[in-house]
Amino acid sequence: MSLECIAKHRAHGGVQGIYRHLSAATGTPMTFSVFVPPQAERAPVPGVIFLSGLSCTHANVTEKGEYRRTCAELGLIFVAPDTSPRGEGVPDDPDGTFSFGLGAGFYVDATEPPYAQHYRMWSYVTHELPALLVEHFPMDGGRQGIMGHSMGGHGALTVGLTYPERFGAVSAFAPIVAPSQEPWGQRALRGYLGPEAAAWRAHDAVALIEGGARVPALRVDQGADDPFLAEHLRPELLAAACAQAGIPLEMYMRPGYDHGYFFVSTFMAEQLRWQHAQLVAL
Amino acid sequence: MSLECIAKHRAHGGVQGIYRHLSAATGTPMTFSVFVPPQAERAPVPGVIFLSGLSCTHANVTEKGEYRRTCAELGLIFVAPDTSPRGEGVPDDPDGTFSFGLGAGFYVDATEPPYAQHYRMWSYVTHELPALLVEHFPMDGGRQGIMGHSMGGHGALTVGLTYPERFGAVSAFAPIVAPSQEPWGQRALRGYLGPEAAAWRAHDAVALIEGGARVPALRVDQGADDPFLAEHLRPELLAAACAQAGIPLEMYMRPGYDHGYFFVSTFMAEQLRWQHAQLVAL
Repeated sequence: MSLECIAKHRAHGGVQGIYRHLSAATGTPMTFSVFVPPQAERAPVPGVIFLSGLSCTHANVTEKGEYRRTCAELGLIFVAPDTSPRGEGVPDDPDGTFSFGLGAGFYVDATEPPYAQHYRMWSYVTHELPALLVEHFPMDGGRQGIMGHSMGGHGALTVGLTYPERFGAVSAFAPIVAPSQEPWGQRALRGYLGPEAAAWRAHDAVALIEGGARVPALRVDQGADDPFLAEHLRPELLAAACAQAGIPLEMYMRPGYDHGYFFVSTFMAEQLRWQHAQLVAL
Repeated sequence: MSLECIAKHRAHGGVQGIYRHLSAATGTPMTFSVFVPPQAERAPVPGVIFLSGLSCTHANVTEKGEYRRTCAELGLIFVAPDTSPRGEGVPDDPDGTFSFGLGAGFYVDATEPPYAQHYRMWSYVTHELPALLVEHFPMDGGRQGIMGHSMGGHGALTVGLTYPERFGAVSAFAPIVAPSQEPWGQRALRGYLGPEAAAWRAHDAVALIEGGARVPALRVDQGADDPFLAEHLRPELLAAACAQAGIPLEMYMRPGYDHGYFFVSTFMAEQLRWQHAQLVAL
């Protein structure tokens, strides 16, 4: 399967497309969406990969994220991949929870059977997808940002902290900042990477920073009325790690906002402007 | 059942709520969404009712319509009702088409059995819902607009042309302008109102204008690449009727745009600004 266009719609002066391809990383068909702004007709433009949260596909942010107007104004490509491999032969969580298995790849390369064969979202979002984007879309490969929501915020932070030279802007909405220290992440990291917590540190933003990872800047928007704040998200751990490491962190606590797309879409424009400002300054 | 709040989320500085009540008009529970902008904390603000298209519920425009930012900026309440009665005892199309029955109430009061009992969307959107809004929300009942998409555009035009003194702004995205002259409308109007085409004229915007109905202004946004344009929507019939009647019609043909929410959301801000300008001038 080469890159197949499933749908294409004019939107906000650009083009919102949905694409599918056979992923070498996951060994499954993968679907993702790309919004190309009108500026890209003339020359390649910066782009941002948005990693979605638990139970989402590419469709959630594509339909509810309200990013197109701002991307069309700034000249920014917006890419939304899926959150796990799917399809025949892809094992799900035998316990049927929503925070492990299908829709919950946690942006790692699994090492544990039976997940190791297909659950390779780390390789997918850090290598295969960026290469595919530069090949098939008018995207400036030198000006690529990464952002995400919840589990996808975890993904964005860990990817950005691991490859600061390749992702020039790193930000998140309501991220899981320390999956080693909260129940969803512990379950998922144990399932994908095995019981040794040492193996989890490469996939925990707070642990990465404690281990020496550095980025020029981070931005987080967080709803103050998010029901997952205290138990799962724990932004204070990121704030403490950044303060200790000297990483400038812009953390915006948003009074009254919860965890969903009504929150994400409200602050999408601001976070995209921040991403764009970082990327054009590269 | 009084008015029950199903969900409430802070969004764009206001509140996006979902509500349910037992409708006297339809004899069923009805669900609708209301966005209340921050300005309404101080005093009642103008509001617009958005009528959705075939197969939609309140949820489609609520999730994909991208109206909140503009409503929060202008100070405009945005209301999205369902497109038909639903639930136990509500008959669907026996042929199972998507353009008649559930999700396809066509904004009429049915007179034909078995639809006459519950399919009373005309009474619902013209009387019951507006009264409910003024009672329960900080909405200025004297500054109410109506807009809609596709079948809901048909609803907005017919409602606005019938009650120009109550709906101070009337606009539509890709409306069915003459359901008497296109297959979806013919099927639905026959099913709800019987075979006499004379009974259909009160629910056909072009026929209403030909019969003398007048409004101060109309606005339509239409995708030029809409696959339903030539057979179902036929905006040229509305343009001809308005020209004949001397009704100022702002008709914007949008090159490259199709029929879906990527189109609607692109021009939502502009159409809301137009609605708001009409309403504040009342």
